[in-house]
Amino acid sequence: MAGQIEPIARMAQQLSRLPGIGAKSALRLAYHIVSLPEDQVHELAAAIWQGRKAVKYCSVCGNYTVEDPCPICADERRHNGVLCVVRDPRDVAAMERMRDFKGTYHVLHGTISPMEGIGPEDIRIRELLARVGSEEIKEVILATNPDIEGEATASYIARLLKPMGILVTRIAHGLPVGGDLEYTDEVTLAKAIEGRREM
Amino acid sequence: MAGQIEPIARMAQQLSRLPGIGAKSALRLAYHIVSLPEDQVHELAAAIWQGRKAVKYCSVCGNYTVEDPCPICADERRHNGVLCVVRDPRDVAAMERMRDFKGTYHVLHGTISPMEGIGPEDIRIRELLARVGSEEIKEVILATNPDIEGEATASYIARLLKPMGILVTRIAHGLPVGGDLEYTDEVTLAKAIEGRREM
Repeated sequence: MAGQIEPIARMAQQLSRLPGIGAKSALRLAYHIVSLPEDQVHELAAAIWQGRKAVKYCSVCGNYTVEDPCPICADERRHNGVLCVVRDPRDVAAMERMRDFKGTYHVLHGTISPMEGIGPEDIRIRELLARVGSEEIKEVILATNPDIEGEATASYIARLLKPMGILVTRIAHGLPVGGDLEYTDEVTLAKAIEGRREM
Repeated sequence: MAGQIEPIARMAQQLSRLPGIGAKSALRLAYHIVSLPEDQVHELAAAIWQGRKAVKYCSVCGNYTVEDPCPICADERRHNGVLCVVRDPRDVAAMERMRDFKGTYHVLHGTISPMEGIGPEDIRIRELLARVGSEEIKEVILATNPDIEGEATASYIARLLKPMGILVTRIAHGLPVGGDLEYTDEVTLAKAIEGRREM
């Protein structure tokens, strides 16, 4: 957008590259940032830059971490033979918030998507097979998203792991807690009926 | 939110202090930033910090600027005796995008708002009076927003300037171009009728 002085225009341009921030919001943010005390802006810029520099991948599970291996992989108590496979580091954070899962993770960094040209060799499936072959793993929980790519990736991995004599499980589909049967789509409902349990 | 490693949590916390960015968006942005190449994150952080450091207030009009006085105040051709009073630097940018206004500006940095405890002495009205007394000004256009605070501020300034023998004008109210009469509120419609012109 025209009419801005260069530092504000550049700041807005950089902010508009972030997902979900359009040109107008970016400009509004830039004007806001310029109006803040210098030390507050320094904190923001430092959190962004130093944060990015501090974060690396865990060489074991592929999750974001400051120390390598990450605290979860370094924790002997978590090596209970159960490995949970997820797409993104964000999914590990979601699982950890639940506080119920006591095993370790494997982050694929993507899902198989022929539409986007992402094949099995583009995500961390080779690393998963290597871990299953070398670590003492009894069960692999496939916790990719219940969407087309997530299902395809889970099926692909299951086909590779089953011949290795490992229990391969998939997270359950069904109604979300607090959900409403009336407003649930048919596919989810069918999965919920299919996965019914005795009470 | 729990489950995040410290650099990501800190980045998200800093981002969530920005207007319009909630805790969840901030976290999504932080994960995105961590996934970007280092040089791209450096550009973003540098644009924020160096941008903030580069921007100061013009000592004449109060607008954001890199050089003092700002390019508009430094341009002799803009000193045509017409001074436009606005609330924010953003309003100057909006006026400049229009490319029609050839005079200079005065940025108040706020509007009078008894509700928020902002009085006439808290915004740059004193500086405005000093400029009107020392510069050769024939007309002051009051271009504060057409809301309660903007109107109150315009009225207050008009009362001070009129005895100084200066033409004081207010931007017109009416339907926005491309607006729809059916969906225009009554007050705007009344202002549009009141401000009607012969065709």
